[in-house]
Amino acid sequence: MKVQSGGIQERYVIGVDFGTLSGRAIVVRVSDGAELGSAVHEYEHGVMDDVLTAAPAAAGRVQLGSDWALQAPQDYVEVLKHAVPAAVAASGVDPGEVIGIGTDFTACTMVPTLADGTPLSDLPEFAARPHAYVKLWRHHAAQPHADRINALAHDRREPWITRYGGLISSEWEFAKGLQLCEEDPELYSRMEHWVEAADWIVWQLTGMYVRNGCTAGYKGIYQDGAYPSREFLAALNPDFAGFADDKVAHQIGQLGDAAGTLSARAAAWTGLPEGIAVAVGNVDAHVTAPAAQAVRPGQMVAIMGTSTCHVMSHDQLAEVPGMCGVVDGGIVSGLYGYEAGQSGVGDIFAWYVNNQVPGRLHDEAAAAGKSIHQHLTDLAYAEPVGAHGLVALDWHSGNRSVLVDHELSGVIVGQTLATRPEQGYRALLEATAFGTRVIVETFAAAGVPVTEFIVAGGLLKNPQLMQTYADVLRLPISTIASEQGPALGSAIHAALAAGAYPDIRAAAAAMGAVDRSVYTPNETAAAVYDQLFAEYRTLHDYFGRGATGAMKRLRALRRDALQVANWAAESVPELVEGVSA
Amino acid sequence: MKVQSGGIQERYVIGVDFGTLSGRAIVVRVSDGAELGSAVHEYEHGVMDDVLTAAPAAAGRVQLGSDWALQAPQDYVEVLKHAVPAAVAASGVDPGEVIGIGTDFTACTMVPTLADGTPLSDLPEFAARPHAYVKLWRHHAAQPHADRINALAHDRREPWITRYGGLISSEWEFAKGLQLCEEDPELYSRMEHWVEAADWIVWQLTGMYVRNGCTAGYKGIYQDGAYPSREFLAALNPDFAGFADDKVAHQIGQLGDAAGTLSARAAAWTGLPEGIAVAVGNVDAHVTAPAAQAVRPGQMVAIMGTSTCHVMSHDQLAEVPGMCGVVDGGIVSGLYGYEAGQSGVGDIFAWYVNNQVPGRLHDEAAAAGKSIHQHLTDLAYAEPVGAHGLVALDWHSGNRSVLVDHELSGVIVGQTLATRPEQGYRALLEATAFGTRVIVETFAAAGVPVTEFIVAGGLLKNPQLMQTYADVLRLPISTIASEQGPALGSAIHAALAAGAYPDIRAAAAAMGAVDRSVYTPNETAAAVYDQLFAEYRTLHDYFGRGATGAMKRLRALRRDALQVANWAAESVPELVEGVSA
Repeated sequence: MKVQSGGIQERYVIGVDFGTLSGRAIVVRVSDGAELGSAVHEYEHGVMDDVLTAAPAAAGRVQLGSDWALQAPQDYVEVLKHAVPAAVAASGVDPGEVIGIGTDFTACTMVPTLADGTPLSDLPEFAARPHAYVKLWRHHAAQPHADRINALAHDRREPWITRYGGLISSEWEFAKGLQLCEEDPELYSRMEHWVEAADWIVWQLTGMYVRNGCTAGYKGIYQDGAYPSREFLAALNPDFAGFADDKVAHQIGQLGDAAGTLSARAAAWTGLPEGIAVAVGNVDAHVTAPAAQAVRPGQMVAIMGTSTCHVMSHDQLAEVPGMCGVVDGGIVSGLYGYEAGQSGVGDIFAWYVNNQVPGRLHDEAAAAGKSIHQHLTDLAYAEPVGAHGLVALDWHSGNRSVLVDHELSGVIVGQTLATRPEQGYRALLEATAFGTRVIVETFAAAGVPVTEFIVAGGLLKNPQLMQTYADVLRLPISTIASEQGPALGSAIHAALAAGAYPDIRAAAAAMGAVDRSVYTPNETAAAVYDQLFAEYRTLHDYFGRGATGAMKRLRALRRDALQVANWAAESVPELVEGVSA
Repeated sequence: MKVQSGGIQERYVIGVDFGTLSGRAIVVRVSDGAELGSAVHEYEHGVMDDVLTAAPAAAGRVQLGSDWALQAPQDYVEVLKHAVPAAVAASGVDPGEVIGIGTDFTACTMVPTLADGTPLSDLPEFAARPHAYVKLWRHHAAQPHADRINALAHDRREPWITRYGGLISSEWEFAKGLQLCEEDPELYSRMEHWVEAADWIVWQLTGMYVRNGCTAGYKGIYQDGAYPSREFLAALNPDFAGFADDKVAHQIGQLGDAAGTLSARAAAWTGLPEGIAVAVGNVDAHVTAPAAQAVRPGQMVAIMGTSTCHVMSHDQLAEVPGMCGVVDGGIVSGLYGYEAGQSGVGDIFAWYVNNQVPGRLHDEAAAAGKSIHQHLTDLAYAEPVGAHGLVALDWHSGNRSVLVDHELSGVIVGQTLATRPEQGYRALLEATAFGTRVIVETFAAAGVPVTEFIVAGGLLKNPQLMQTYADVLRLPISTIASEQGPALGSAIHAALAAGAYPDIRAAAAAMGAVDRSVYTPNETAAAVYDQLFAEYRTLHDYFGRGATGAMKRLRALRRDALQVANWAAESVPELVEGVSA
């Protein structure tokens, strides 16, 4: 069934985007992608990276370790109960005309469950144990485990390692799973499925567990029909030998297919008709590509928010050093889907604003009715490129591509007594653009060049930042024409799952939205940025490629210092790593 | 005449310390060094590093160039008129019992004058020209000139260059003079003396120009009875050939001698008796050594304020790489006086507090009744050494020793999204301690080891900072027992000039004051600081010794950016370098 725009019987789909702090539902018209209503619901427990606030009060203060980041799975269900009906109400659409629902999620975000999908954190006996909770994408405490996985994979010349640019991330299923296995063996043995949150939420909608091919490939090391071998896993730790077979492997659904239909329970939660199509789970970044009509080779979509994820399809299979991964059909069927990323972008700007900007600038911004981000941007861009004399490395949250190392950290070089706060802010904006350029150049060098750079995500709203990216990359910047790219992408997949379009290209053409070449490179600025980028590149290689191990040693020193015996846990948040009740 | 404590006829001396922002006068009892009264007078024009605020209103806005720092000489005279009588009044001493006055000054701070000492800035026709004003010690715009002096000195194997650790600073007489010569030839030709402010103020007191041996040696390249040769200067620039002979050379007075007696005019200004002894001019850092009883080999005094100056006497003549200089009798007669320094210390902490600390911490400090510096210190030192995971380079104002390069700049490595503002502050405190350790180790390696480290200056008041220095240096830290070390040192020299003591050692023993070994190294902390220092040392050599020229390139880029034609001078302070009316 293909619904024509302006046809007599309009149909609608729901897209739900599960982000880091909240979930957003939108109602979209199938014929043309018009967004008719939306609603947001914030997670009650947000990100737990200091104290396990979801633990029962009786458990007292359960301190989390350094680099931990957890969530409470029931917070996700609340989005279905609140945001979906609110979006439908806002749209004025009759729920009976909704034919499908699609979802996307942060990834790799992992839920440990029983056989029926019950999260371990829902069991009273485990409710105060950090490892029972969802490990959010930015849980970075499994770096030592990732290091071991990578070293062993290279030692054994595992064929799959090159599909991930040579490095498995600490953010992904196997590193996080190995940490769980070794740090809380009781919970590990009790866990029956290690489930992507992207699939867990679909499980809640349909009552059936279907694993999506996107995260299976990108985050679950599923390549050419197989996971890493039992021998490999046993060599990591004998207790980990059955991880893939027993906890991870499951029926896989392809993107755009239906995972099942809406259960009676989920229909009651959402107010939608029981039995409508529920799309296979998907990832926020990947689902955005069709929303931005980026379904052809060489079109890179950058979803720029707290972090940036880059997705690009291509007809060539290439081994791109330091990419997150390449998965056949990982974004759209019939093309190789490439992923890369920058683990801190908007997060770094927010950190700077909250920690390194004096009150007078906040006061000025408030007086001018501007956000502090806009005020700093306006001040910083009042002077020409290079006038701040600074260069920074954007690794405050580690480096996802192309170094794949979450032990790296931030650097700023060039501060003088004349350096103003807004100049440091601009240096960080620029650093993220330089980080993107490293990725784009690495793809080109590997034979899969980027021909168009399309931006989605919240940072779109800063035109000076966008112009900086155009200048630094020397590429035209197109921008997604939806403010809710991931949710729109999920809605497009819902329409596909409901059979409204024959394939993703047709659906994207009808429902996606992009403004082409909104920003074009300014050659004068680009020439100066080239000089700053050369400095960035030198620092990048010096600090990131082993010329100095300073950042790793500083991290180790920090961990050692915080583990000093009897150091008051009350006064230092990151003291006790992985305390359990 | 030696006055005994408790003797019938007490005598008094005045010490006047001319700092960067103000001058302080104190009244001191000759018999025992007791400080009986003091007063401060701020310079009306402070430091002019953006706009020439001392220019006549008719001249409009006279913009200064990048790295400029000027002062108005008449501001110094106001200190004599206001602070001296106020200090005498506060002390209750009868002015008739004052037998001498001594002064010390920042250095190298240079006044261009006519033959009679009139500053060129006092001539109406020059009053809007930046080069007519005093070039303050931290005027750093003569770095290219210093670079040429150094390159030529090494090319020609000038014997004096090793007395300065191999490098002449952009802060000193010849670099600043060459800049004046080349950038404002008319003023240069009109200038009859290029006078240290230390000597200019004595000239105002006595009516006679006597050049002090301390700055002649340390700042004026006067070694073994000669200045750099006419041939050398002509090779820099033919117009500069006569610089030493015509503008710089003059009768030299030794420290502790009288330069002359108080003139009738200066007696009227100060309310002191005409005809009392006026000591030869001196430098704030050097004059502090006797105030801290540091007159024996191996006792290093660090005067820690906005910058830090290190002075140490020794019986051995050594060539210490990167020291500021060694001068025979440069601190006390009969010993070689060594000087080294760190061009930014308290200045960097102040920059951080004003530019990188959010309002909430200022509010907390105010609520607790603490200074923001103390509040940040308390927060940062609540966690153990190394817990911040940071290492910084303290070069926001360049590096005086041992790299002698004011094109260097600040670095901070290791920031994460969890880094708190107070952690960055502590990293900067530590960086200055590491910078001191580089200096101390360099002196030891050259054969003139530091055996005692004595701190004077405003930063004494931070005990955690002092303990950090003890731990980082693994040396006991003694502290001067006067809050006005330089002024007390000037008073000691006044007593000597007036003949109250036979030599500086006797005067220092009677009038100086030090608390020995107030802070001793904590071995546990020292061991962790060793690890952080290793990181500092690696960064120091990477950024400072030519492995990367990143900082110099960033500075050049900054200068280029700010010189973009027609860039609005109104919006960017550092645009127009050396504008003249």
